[in-house]
Amino acid sequence: MKSAGIIGVGLIGGSFGLALRKAGFEGPILGVSSARSIGEAVERGAIDRGVSLEEAGGVCDVLFLAQPISGILETLRKLDPLVKTDTLVTDAGSTKQAIVKEAERSLRRCAFLGGHPMAGKAERGVAAADADLFRGRPWVLTSDIDHPFRKWVAAFGACEIVLDAARHDRLVAWSSHLPQLASTALASLVGDRAPEAVAVAGPGLLDATRLAMSSFDLWRDILETNGREISVALDAYIEKLTALRSDLEGEFRKGGEFARSLRSRNWPPMNADKRG
Amino acid sequence: MKSAGIIGVGLIGGSFGLALRKAGFEGPILGVSSARSIGEAVERGAIDRGVSLEEAGGVCDVLFLAQPISGILETLRKLDPLVKTDTLVTDAGSTKQAIVKEAERSLRRCAFLGGHPMAGKAERGVAAADADLFRGRPWVLTSDIDHPFRKWVAAFGACEIVLDAARHDRLVAWSSHLPQLASTALASLVGDRAPEAVAVAGPGLLDATRLAMSSFDLWRDILETNGREISVALDAYIEKLTALRSDLEGEFRKGGEFARSLRSRNWPPMNADKRG
Repeated sequence: MKSAGIIGVGLIGGSFGLALRKAGFEGPILGVSSARSIGEAVERGAIDRGVSLEEAGGVCDVLFLAQPISGILETLRKLDPLVKTDTLVTDAGSTKQAIVKEAERSLRRCAFLGGHPMAGKAERGVAAADADLFRGRPWVLTSDIDHPFRKWVAAFGACEIVLDAARHDRLVAWSSHLPQLASTALASLVGDRAPEAVAVAGPGLLDATRLAMSSFDLWRDILETNGREISVALDAYIEKLTALRSDLEGEFRKGGEFARSLRSRNWPPMNADKRG
Repeated sequence: MKSAGIIGVGLIGGSFGLALRKAGFEGPILGVSSARSIGEAVERGAIDRGVSLEEAGGVCDVLFLAQPISGILETLRKLDPLVKTDTLVTDAGSTKQAIVKEAERSLRRCAFLGGHPMAGKAERGVAAADADLFRGRPWVLTSDIDHPFRKWVAAFGACEIVLDAARHDRLVAWSSHLPQLASTALASLVGDRAPEAVAVAGPGLLDATRLAMSSFDLWRDILETNGREISVALDAYIEKLTALRSDLEGEFRKGGEFARSLRSRNWPPMNADKRG
């Protein structure tokens, strides 16, 4: 891997550039993004310079697509004629089946490796980028092809997990998309029915509504590209809530066990509790 | 207020004793609790000594009932013959209607003021007690009777809010009890259906399942004494989740607005994000 191109230089793309540099990558890092993001990214040292997609495709060994899902799909549709045949195209999209399918359809001249670094922050944009954003966090890859790119993922301190696209999308429907909808629905409902509850809100309501601050801009694509799995999870949640009262003690026990098992992993707590 | 009695010297009772001392209270602070809690509370300076309920009733100007709700109800049933007529009995129970009703029925010889300091921690017991636990947090009172006790609440740095018992119970059904059940149901469900999600869990799932670690011991009484309001809130939540897909963008907007309005208050964030 001699040169890297980042398509979409926001929080994730910018952090990727900073992490590459911190891990010792010495080749050029080129960025394809809005003029404003390019300016900030160069200033922060996340990329060396902004280029067109054509130039990035003609130069880079690895292209990292870090746009919203619909942007990644669009880039994939026009990338094939632009890349070198030994290029690896990889991405950071939050759902994987639609992206992997588009890559299979459109990218015929080079290899593709679907990816999803499970990292984030409340803030968006390259201004919030952080060389350590991926440290200690899972980085899902949709296949285990042999490529030096994976050594850089390890060098960022991320924990590589190979999951095929369908299995990834099923898991994140439960671990990420359902919690988002549960939080959005709760915040919207309490806002409708008891807005005065603000006056007596405790830490529990803050935890439970933190995800509700997520932007729909980011979620629109996720909800559209993982609709079926999300519907299964949402229906099951409604069923669970409906049956909850028949065994409250058992549900508290099971919920507590799962919540504690989550926390017995090392990675997420610090990051979670640093957020706003 | 010359002497204070704390019935139930755990996290809240112990913090009350420490907060009184820190705020400059110089009279005796007596505790009624298990031998083990009394030992720890004396050592930490939260109380001066352990006494029987009879002795506390015969001596103290203010009795602070800081047991679980069922313990408070039991204490109220036997307290009347033990108190001085100028004593104020107050409490820290998480629901208020059952307690205020029991106080009206049982306490005929002295005044009662229902209370609910909206403060807590993941840890329990007097070992976790903290003189600043109430600082910047709401402290609900069920009436605005004139009594020096309220000056001490202010001296703790708490924000007094007068709400009648029914209104309190309705509000906390939305702000506290529904979020608890939503979190318990989510954690229990993900544990059932996708326990492997632990491997890809992000900060969102941690936020959304933090409440699920609450002990059912504390919640049994809350759920029993506020069952009707909780059912209304839970049914409305199920309805909201069922209708959610018809206007995802609107729900994200409304949920985000409420979540941000919660955070425009000064009190809870720091406390929330320090917890485990």
